[in-house]
Amino acid sequence: MSRLRKDPIVGRWIIISTDHPKKPEDYHTEEPQDDVSPADCPLCGGNESKTPPEIAAFRAEKSLPNSKDWWVRVIPSKYPVLHVEGSLEREGAGIYDWMNGVGAHEIIIETPEHAQRLEELPESQIEKVLWAYRDRMLDLERDERLRYVLVLKNQGWSAGSAVNHTHTQIIATPIIPKRVKEKLDGAKSYYDYKERCIFCDMIRQELGSGERIIEETRHFVAFTPFAARFPFETWVYPKRHSCAYTDISKEEIMDFSRMLRNMLRRLGIVLNDPPYNYILYTAPNRIARSGHWHTLNDDFHWHVEIMPRLIRVAGFEWGSGFYINPTSPEDAAKYLRDVKL
Amino acid sequence: MSRLRKDPIVGRWIIISTDHPKKPEDYHTEEPQDDVSPADCPLCGGNESKTPPEIAAFRAEKSLPNSKDWWVRVIPSKYPVLHVEGSLEREGAGIYDWMNGVGAHEIIIETPEHAQRLEELPESQIEKVLWAYRDRMLDLERDERLRYVLVLKNQGWSAGSAVNHTHTQIIATPIIPKRVKEKLDGAKSYYDYKERCIFCDMIRQELGSGERIIEETRHFVAFTPFAARFPFETWVYPKRHSCAYTDISKEEIMDFSRMLRNMLRRLGIVLNDPPYNYILYTAPNRIARSGHWHTLNDDFHWHVEIMPRLIRVAGFEWGSGFYINPTSPEDAAKYLRDVKL
Repeated sequence: MSRLRKDPIVGRWIIISTDHPKKPEDYHTEEPQDDVSPADCPLCGGNESKTPPEIAAFRAEKSLPNSKDWWVRVIPSKYPVLHVEGSLEREGAGIYDWMNGVGAHEIIIETPEHAQRLEELPESQIEKVLWAYRDRMLDLERDERLRYVLVLKNQGWSAGSAVNHTHTQIIATPIIPKRVKEKLDGAKSYYDYKERCIFCDMIRQELGSGERIIEETRHFVAFTPFAARFPFETWVYPKRHSCAYTDISKEEIMDFSRMLRNMLRRLGIVLNDPPYNYILYTAPNRIARSGHWHTLNDDFHWHVEIMPRLIRVAGFEWGSGFYINPTSPEDAAKYLRDVKL
Repeated sequence: MSRLRKDPIVGRWIIISTDHPKKPEDYHTEEPQDDVSPADCPLCGGNESKTPPEIAAFRAEKSLPNSKDWWVRVIPSKYPVLHVEGSLEREGAGIYDWMNGVGAHEIIIETPEHAQRLEELPESQIEKVLWAYRDRMLDLERDERLRYVLVLKNQGWSAGSAVNHTHTQIIATPIIPKRVKEKLDGAKSYYDYKERCIFCDMIRQELGSGERIIEETRHFVAFTPFAARFPFETWVYPKRHSCAYTDISKEEIMDFSRMLRNMLRRLGIVLNDPPYNYILYTAPNRIARSGHWHTLNDDFHWHVEIMPRLIRVAGFEWGSGFYINPTSPEDAAKYLRDVKL
């Protein structure tokens, strides 16, 4: 069982993962793996027996769980950082606090084919992946121990991926993560002062100036953020004010699928298929009270952050929380906007 | 001139560095450089003409600035992320804020010999480096535009270093960096509630339990933090309550030199000379008022964080601010403590 521990000074939670504790010599040997063949890849169609039993899947009518004939498949992580079993049990001693590592860690296999990148898939397949995000969020937020469902992708070795077959990670946590809390707090302060959503205001200002816009569709807009931490960092927002990804409509999913694919293709073309991470930020889990759902964060606005991993992060960034970005967001937007898709 | 920009949602400042703006193709080609020979190394003794003119140096009596015969030499960075020239000029448009990239960026050359790591140097030489840290802080905090002086080291390519000759970076910033602000705020909350320094309480609790202690000297203690973000992360604290590094005594410098060297040697032995970053956290710059110095942060306690760079940081960490550490701080402390120096 892993443990969550809290830093007493800054309040940051971390996970001490003790299922497979690492010794000093384990750190010398971490190397990117060669790509496996589809015959050996546990995420490929036909190899369902090589994974833990599936949690959910979009599959052909009448096909059995853990058989082939699926489009998208959700399995528990083989090396979960948090575990579904057990109770939270918050404890403390002196200035320190900890709790059991309760949560969920799932893998969404985005295709039965041995594709390496999401953007290689057709829009219709990406739509299914995006529905799977929604379905897993809806299911996991029913677990009252969990406060947040984080959906994220590690693309490429240096972005943290260990498996080449394209997949998404779902990590549900018993606390609201610090980075999410900072966004919620910032958005709430602005809302209290202005009585407007800060994200809606930002979208309006970006569309007004246009200098950081990469692409606009009927329902979505993609731009490089004014204060981008990383070169070619890209944000995708729904134009409609909506705090929770789970409220997305069918038409919006179709539009989002196209937008996400286009952004990843633009980054791939301009930056020669870089490693990247993307993260979907949605409101914290709704809390079941007196039999119906309350949404607590109407001042939030769901969105995706895409971060190509192009530069080394050094002591200055770790130590200060400042970032140095050697490509202006306006230049980056122009490169990405000018791509012919 | 670089610019500081503020993220409107979370309030994080970033630096858009436009002195040498990077195009997409510049990101494919970043590779570790081969070590240069001492004859070609601009940081080596005898090659003083290959660097910008020195800002300060500990050098032999009667030797001229920018000549040889020095022990420690401070030069401006050749690629500064912030510039000493100009005024701050805060500006804004709509929800966005920015200011000129005013600050300082200096390099402390830790030895005229072509050594690769600080821990290779004798204690007496490291003492000189530690005095240079203090002297640069005292000098830079007289500049009223500057709010903080960050002293940090990038050791090794993957920790952000581009030059093999051992050196320290000094970056002075016109705002208090976010990570420092979080520490100050956390310490202040605790002080308001308990009327005690949280760092002093933490040191007492660590010395009491002993399970995370690596080494204790007369004036210093080194331990792995309870909620370590990274495997083998190590913190070094002075036992005496002191908010500002600049108040360090001669005896403490001697002790600190030994302690810092020992910790870096322990990490080197256990982890096979890993890349690492260390950061010195001190109170923000004292502000000159009515002719004498005020210290504003008596609830702070200066310290050093050493972070070996052993694992890849993935989407989960970037997206959540949570960290996953696969070696418990208690195990890490035991490995480091058991080293025979």
